[in-house]
Amino acid sequence: MEKKTLLTDCPDAMGLISKITNICYKHQLNIVHNNEFVAHSHSQFFMRTELEGYFNDETFLLDLDHALPEGSQRRLIGSERKRIVIMVTKEAHCLGDILVKTFDGTLDIEIAAIVGNYDDLAELARNFGVPYHHISHEGISRDEHEALLLETVQQYTPDYVVLAKYMRILTPNFVAQFPHKIINIHHSFLPAFIGAKPYQQAFERGVKIIGATAHFVTNDLDEGPIITQNVIPVDHNFSAKDMARAGKDVEKSVLSKALGLVIDDRVFVHGNRTVIL
Amino acid sequence: MEKKTLLTDCPDAMGLISKITNICYKHQLNIVHNNEFVAHSHSQFFMRTELEGYFNDETFLLDLDHALPEGSQRRLIGSERKRIVIMVTKEAHCLGDILVKTFDGTLDIEIAAIVGNYDDLAELARNFGVPYHHISHEGISRDEHEALLLETVQQYTPDYVVLAKYMRILTPNFVAQFPHKIINIHHSFLPAFIGAKPYQQAFERGVKIIGATAHFVTNDLDEGPIITQNVIPVDHNFSAKDMARAGKDVEKSVLSKALGLVIDDRVFVHGNRTVIL
Amino acid sequence: MEKKTLLTDCPDAMGLISKITNICYKHQLNIVHNNEFVAHSHSQFFMRTELEGYFNDETFLLDLDHALPEGSQRRLIGSERKRIVIMVTKEAHCLGDILVKTFDGTLDIEIAAIVGNYDDLAELARNFGVPYHHISHEGISRDEHEALLLETVQQYTPDYVVLAKYMRILTPNFVAQFPHKIINIHHSFLPAFIGAKPYQQAFERGVKIIGATAHFVTNDLDEGPIITQNVIPVDHNFSAKDMARAGKDVEKSVLSKALGLVIDDRVFVHGNRTVIL
Amino acid sequence: MEKKTLLTDCPDAMGLISKITNICYKHQLNIVHNNEFVAHSHSQFFMRTELEGYFNDETFLLDLDHALPEGSQRRLIGSERKRIVIMVTKEAHCLGDILVKTFDGTLDIEIAAIVGNYDDLAELARNFGVPYHHISHEGISRDEHEALLLETVQQYTPDYVVLAKYMRILTPNFVAQFPHKIINIHHSFLPAFIGAKPYQQAFERGVKIIGATAHFVTNDLDEGPIITQNVIPVDHNFSAKDMARAGKDVEKSVLSKALGLVIDDRVFVHGNRTVIL
Repeated sequence: MEKKTLLTDCPDAMGLISKITNICYKHQLNIVHNNEFVAHSHSQFFMRTELEGYFNDETFLLDLDHALPEGSQRRLIGSERKRIVIMVTKEAHCLGDILVKTFDGTLDIEIAAIVGNYDDLAELARNFGVPYHHISHEGISRDEHEALLLETVQQYTPDYVVLAKYMRILTPNFVAQFPHKIINIHHSFLPAFIGAKPYQQAFERGVKIIGATAHFVTNDLDEGPIITQNVIPVDHNFSAKDMARAGKDVEKSVLSKALGLVIDDRVFVHGNRTVIL
Repeated sequence: MEKKTLLTDCPDAMGLISKITNICYKHQLNIVHNNEFVAHSHSQFFMRTELEGYFNDETFLLDLDHALPEGSQRRLIGSERKRIVIMVTKEAHCLGDILVKTFDGTLDIEIAAIVGNYDDLAELARNFGVPYHHISHEGISRDEHEALLLETVQQYTPDYVVLAKYMRILTPNFVAQFPHKIINIHHSFLPAFIGAKPYQQAFERGVKIIGATAHFVTNDLDEGPIITQNVIPVDHNFSAKDMARAGKDVEKSVLSKALGLVIDDRVFVHGNRTVIL
Repeated sequence: MEKKTLLTDCPDAMGLISKITNICYKHQLNIVHNNEFVAHSHSQFFMRTELEGYFNDETFLLDLDHALPEGSQRRLIGSERKRIVIMVTKEAHCLGDILVKTFDGTLDIEIAAIVGNYDDLAELARNFGVPYHHISHEGISRDEHEALLLETVQQYTPDYVVLAKYMRILTPNFVAQFPHKIINIHHSFLPAFIGAKPYQQAFERGVKIIGATAHFVTNDLDEGPIITQNVIPVDHNFSAKDMARAGKDVEKSVLSKALGLVIDDRVFVHGNRTVIL
Repeated sequence: MEKKTLLTDCPDAMGLISKITNICYKHQLNIVHNNEFVAHSHSQFFMRTELEGYFNDETFLLDLDHALPEGSQRRLIGSERKRIVIMVTKEAHCLGDILVKTFDGTLDIEIAAIVGNYDDLAELARNFGVPYHHISHEGISRDEHEALLLETVQQYTPDYVVLAKYMRILTPNFVAQFPHKIINIHHSFLPAFIGAKPYQQAFERGVKIIGATAHFVTNDLDEGPIITQNVIPVDHNFSAKDMARAGKDVEKSVLSKALGLVIDDRVFVHGNRTVIL
């Protein structure tokens, strides 16, 4: 018996749940979990179906393709562990959290490699036995640097790239290689405080709550589809530096949670929004 | 075109979603929202289906009864406004919240009557044009008091009874008249601080968070199925009285939220737990 | 024995706490609660001191003025109930919450009057026995409308004006009459979604958390000093309308909390930020 | 110039703030931060004063002792890094979090050693260069085991002992060696679900929120003074195992936060409650 997950993303129509679950039933596949959502504003249907049984992928997908309306997307995903490349700069907390969670099995991923534009975190990577590539951006052009990054990342053929406080902006060329495959953590409650130094901005505005946002990277800075967000209270006692310190726990838990949702194939992208089933 | 909600609660079996949604499809009923849950630990299946179309209840339910396994429960509920009786003692905040939310349409209910064992809240009820019955417990036995209460409440044939800080314990006889139909707000994060004076208990234990719990009333005090809970932070500055004051906002929002879920037919009871779809 | 609160806001200097508390001690005033804060970035000192005893305001303040550095502000505030005027448009939840909390004593204020540019909430005001002034903006110029508003509000000489979902922008002339005396509730987690239709903006951005912000009104729209904020989680199931509905509880609790802090004389304004002691 | 923290814990009396801050002023010590609290219910006064300047500890403390009432406790604490011993069993998340936070400086502590009754976490400790002592409880009596533990821990003369999911109960003899010096993380929102398997208990009770509690260890199991608590929402989709998985992030952040407060000398114990200044 195998476990697979069927993801359906298609124009809404009457009887879709019936048709899809009929096909599962016909193929003697047991539905372990099922969640669906209709974005009525766009008449779009999303369904995530965890299945258990003996799969004949080809005939199963063929049956689905006959049943689903034109313009449908469906994927049948096996339970193989996802392969991840993590990009970092200098801060340890997000990387450390993913490393510990992978160590103890909370995140069921394979960390193929860590790539940093500084070497501050090389030791931490080595502590956990993960290859670390130090690719400095100094003394070379942005294009040269990104070409090196891209070459390094691509050799690992990652399912997802995680920017664990990677503090440089990626160019459209890089982003285009990994559509909805790059997950970033931004250290503010987006769309508040887009861009640089969000904690300094938050301090100056005098907010009483700060947050963090995990999102897919697109070519619009800090504007990609949001996967998850969380916040913590602050008050007048917090300097910008105190906020940055307090924010670390939120950043890392938001990023890990987003990564967990993504590798469980729970995240659909719908325009600039996400549907999480 | 009508809107109705189908609630299915039955032993789990292969193909249930398929069978139920097939019948909806056959009856040309459009599924507006659908949520299901399988309690794998007990092999029990729950589904809530919002439907839109032209209903022939009799044939639709007949088809369902043929398709569902033995021991199944299904209800098809129209969109009539639920009728509520509210029971109170002296505190205004929960009652006031429900009255204002009914006034502005946030809660789409009919408040048939308010019953209090004191008359402190009679004026508030009158302000909103709702009948208020003052049934004092003084000078009569517990049984006599409850007989009066029961008679008064039952004359309104309520769909649900809401205990909005009603501070007396109801007897099994009363509870038996309204199985899973009485919603209580308890001013603690259950199961912490069961019974009397939970804020005093919380103060003495030195907790850093306090909360409130809305639950269905059963014959075990504060032990019924929990519908919703919420919490707020406190610290050493809070006396028991400060906690009680701060807790009011949590109590009322938790109770209103629970009531909203119940009247939307989202709450299934499963043993001593709730499934909210 | 009386209770008064001393608020000190002055340039930081060595020995300030010592000097101020010495004077309290000399005057045989007992310190019931004391909180202080130094904004080291601006070398500004804030202290809130709850005192109990027999006050000779004149000599006490004279002693303080001798002890405090140049440019100091200090106020000694008695425990009289604050007088409030509430301005509204059509939505009942914030007004209703303040009315119920005043009714049951949770907010110890005098609601002198309610002023609305529609009459939708006149009935609610009357239910609680509070004068309601319907001052429509229709058929007259903005200046004429504000002149009428101002005249009406000022006749009550309010300590604070509360905008309980008053949906029009006040002009600098109006704002200038009540410096740091007007409290507004904005239905977003500022500075995200400034301006009109924040829930629609939130829906379109696909955020996973929405919030509300209570702030003092200045001439920069939604840019005044923030008093308090809170948030609730949302997900893809929430339409903009659902967010608006769910946000009501946050809006009202944030506004009431801010009002409670302000009337307890806990809120200092420091540049565009607040210090809450 | 040095930085030290003065902690005062004494019977309440008139003029205490004045007396203490006068002495600081007289010694030309600048007050960087000051917080005080009076537990009016017990007439007990607590103050935490961060000082900066040139210290003559002896004369400063002598002056204080003359000024403070009988039964006062005062400590003047330098800014030396605290020395910590961590005790663990098998779970990595709390230990991993403390290790990463020490690695990147978020927690400014010296981890002297890690002691485990299993060796599962020896590798993680070694990765971070911290001595790991595997002291199995198997094949020896409880007393023998604790004698070994105590000997090992005491050789490091720790300021605090952190139980980072150490899953055995310590005897009164062990606890007596470290009064208010042992910090434990309990994986529930105490006082709910005291004792074994709190997530299983939480699942069975059907709660909608789970939490974690960091507290000082006393001889009453899970009854010691609470330092900090936090919670996360759960729903019917969570099995006990899912709760345990989701709870890890709360457990570790609560424990790290409590440890941070303790090493910053912010936590006073008052009866069975804490005052955090």
